[in-house]
Amino acid sequence: MSGRKRTYLDWNATAPLSAAARESVLSALDLQGNPSSVHGEGRAVRALIDGARRDVAALVGAEPAHVIFTSGATEAANMVLTPDFRMGRTPLSVGRLYVSAIEHPAVREGGRFDRENVTEIPVTPAGLVDLDALKALLEAHDRAAGLPMVAIMLANNETGIVQPVRQAADIVHKAGGIFVVDAVQAAGRLPLSIIELDADFMILSAHKLSGPKGAGALVSRGEVLMPKVLIHGGGQEKGHRSGTENATAIAGFAAAAREATGGLEERTAAILRLRDGMEARMTELAGDVIIHGRDVSRLCNTTFFSLPGLKSETGQIAFDLEGIAISAGSACSSGKVGASHVLTAMGFDAGLGALRVSLGSTTTETDVERFLEAFGRIAGRRRQGVAAA
Amino acid sequence: MSGRKRTYLDWNATAPLSAAARESVLSALDLQGNPSSVHGEGRAVRALIDGARRDVAALVGAEPAHVIFTSGATEAANMVLTPDFRMGRTPLSVGRLYVSAIEHPAVREGGRFDRENVTEIPVTPAGLVDLDALKALLEAHDRAAGLPMVAIMLANNETGIVQPVRQAADIVHKAGGIFVVDAVQAAGRLPLSIIELDADFMILSAHKLSGPKGAGALVSRGEVLMPKVLIHGGGQEKGHRSGTENATAIAGFAAAAREATGGLEERTAAILRLRDGMEARMTELAGDVIIHGRDVSRLCNTTFFSLPGLKSETGQIAFDLEGIAISAGSACSSGKVGASHVLTAMGFDAGLGALRVSLGSTTTETDVERFLEAFGRIAGRRRQGVAAA
Repeated sequence: MSGRKRTYLDWNATAPLSAAARESVLSALDLQGNPSSVHGEGRAVRALIDGARRDVAALVGAEPAHVIFTSGATEAANMVLTPDFRMGRTPLSVGRLYVSAIEHPAVREGGRFDRENVTEIPVTPAGLVDLDALKALLEAHDRAAGLPMVAIMLANNETGIVQPVRQAADIVHKAGGIFVVDAVQAAGRLPLSIIELDADFMILSAHKLSGPKGAGALVSRGEVLMPKVLIHGGGQEKGHRSGTENATAIAGFAAAAREATGGLEERTAAILRLRDGMEARMTELAGDVIIHGRDVSRLCNTTFFSLPGLKSETGQIAFDLEGIAISAGSACSSGKVGASHVLTAMGFDAGLGALRVSLGSTTTETDVERFLEAFGRIAGRRRQGVAAA
Repeated sequence: MSGRKRTYLDWNATAPLSAAARESVLSALDLQGNPSSVHGEGRAVRALIDGARRDVAALVGAEPAHVIFTSGATEAANMVLTPDFRMGRTPLSVGRLYVSAIEHPAVREGGRFDRENVTEIPVTPAGLVDLDALKALLEAHDRAAGLPMVAIMLANNETGIVQPVRQAADIVHKAGGIFVVDAVQAAGRLPLSIIELDADFMILSAHKLSGPKGAGALVSRGEVLMPKVLIHGGGQEKGHRSGTENATAIAGFAAAAREATGGLEERTAAILRLRDGMEARMTELAGDVIIHGRDVSRLCNTTFFSLPGLKSETGQIAFDLEGIAISAGSACSSGKVGASHVLTAMGFDAGLGALRVSLGSTTTETDVERFLEAFGRIAGRRRQGVAAA
């Protein structure tokens, strides 16, 4: 790290806190009081949470009453991915969970489903969920064990590839299934409407959209079909999620949601220009670079690339030493860098290294320039057969 | 609320953020990076979390490796209160959960146990867990269904009464059971040692000890006997709790834990003096006031009282209008004030109203004076048969 200027291009791992979100966090920090308390201090925190619920609902075109705040997207996924649902007061069983092969581990792990009741939906070599395969899987679904549930992300965290979620919704609903959309990476980068996407549930995370870590949400289409409670206790969030609300993080989440909702088109267009310019230069600097998903619809901010001969881990360390923070696919808990399950699902060799550059609203031309300089050097060293670091 | 000075005496609901915790939160907010990322930014956040783990471990005399950070105490309770454990790689079943009748709802709800497998341990009229009853329950425990698990709080959130946890540990372990101690209200107010208490698991919350909302911990005695994972995903917290760590709240938790560990004796002695003086004056002002648990060992900061003829809800509103934030027992999610399950368990009539005053490290003589003035007026109005508000 030394004293050198760093360039942060890992927004898909966590987006730097925006100024507005930071300000909301600070204001909320100074509110004392438990939102469940009936005194003035408690009511002030309650009002803040109610307002935040409206802001987060607006981000996805949902009803405020249908937003359940959680500690993050992973908890929200674990809440909704369960075989035990209720339709009003009537228990409803989900027999099998179908998740795309490129889902985030928070979804791929299957939440409360037993492993043997989770089936992977393959993706095409282009990186898109294979809708024909989904159709075939649901046709073969054994209804005796319960409903089918399908979880597909709106945009992939590694490649940024936008998934055919609307079409998937039709297939799932025709099969009488429950449809969950992980919108974590899409939020703030694509227009979002739970109704237009025809999702039954949507998963959101604050820190991926320049809010603070520690807040996420499970948004539902209605209030009748709801998953079994994951965290029981004092009955907060209308009983769906107990525990004193993290009002500070929720306030920051709301500010980030407001920013993400406004000026989306201009913001994403600017990021897209930067990203596309960067990719053009990358191709000039290294003719053999592979930019994954270049030919399909992708998030404006994401470039997932492979440089033949450069391993993920070596590459990531080399960029880090050059002062550039990028990542090898999704942030892995162990800090170890394994093969990308996304590329493997797309049919690439598990030995192919890949690195993800992800930009954001405060990324500058200079940031991209610094990345490109490092990219040129690292790609060059690779050609000379010299260790990248 | 108006512009009037407010007096906050509801520290057991949530303690105001300390200056040190606030500072740690602010520093952490400015760290960008996902702790699972291997680049410099990620490693800086990881280092912060590792340090925090040592601080929280020190608070309860545990190994840092045995601290699992959660979104709060409620999540920690739901993690540990499960019929499914592992002893190393071997599954281990817990057949029945025994919880004291005065536990916090986060524990009383029984986590992942089915309702029919949760048994209440009665308390004595003095407000102490009935150890003879516990012994009898465990003797009658049906081992065929699995081990017994017992959860008892170290100090009650409403009365502040300190429970005979060490003796309970002996009884539980003699019966071959797992012993869980909710130390949420005791932390920072009593010396804490997971070893001396002989607990297998301990539950902590940051915001009850002047840290931020949004962080808690499940602390274990070892690493071999562990509950089934509640939140699956990216494998953070050594796989015990997935989801991007809330580094900001964890940093504040650590600062609060450091403060709680140091100077405990002086701090609690000062609070005790204030509290005891306050109670003496309350008795002078209203001869019929009942101070619950006055004759047994209580937390230094808690006064749970009843004024015959004053309902909890009426009383709480009256104090709020006087500018005093106190509560009617534990903060209830609905904002409604029901009968205290703690007083009911102690054998009091469900109709007896009660109010909780809880002080903290920054509570002043003036705060207590303001409370006493309001107390005198409200107690007086009650005697005159005038509506309290």
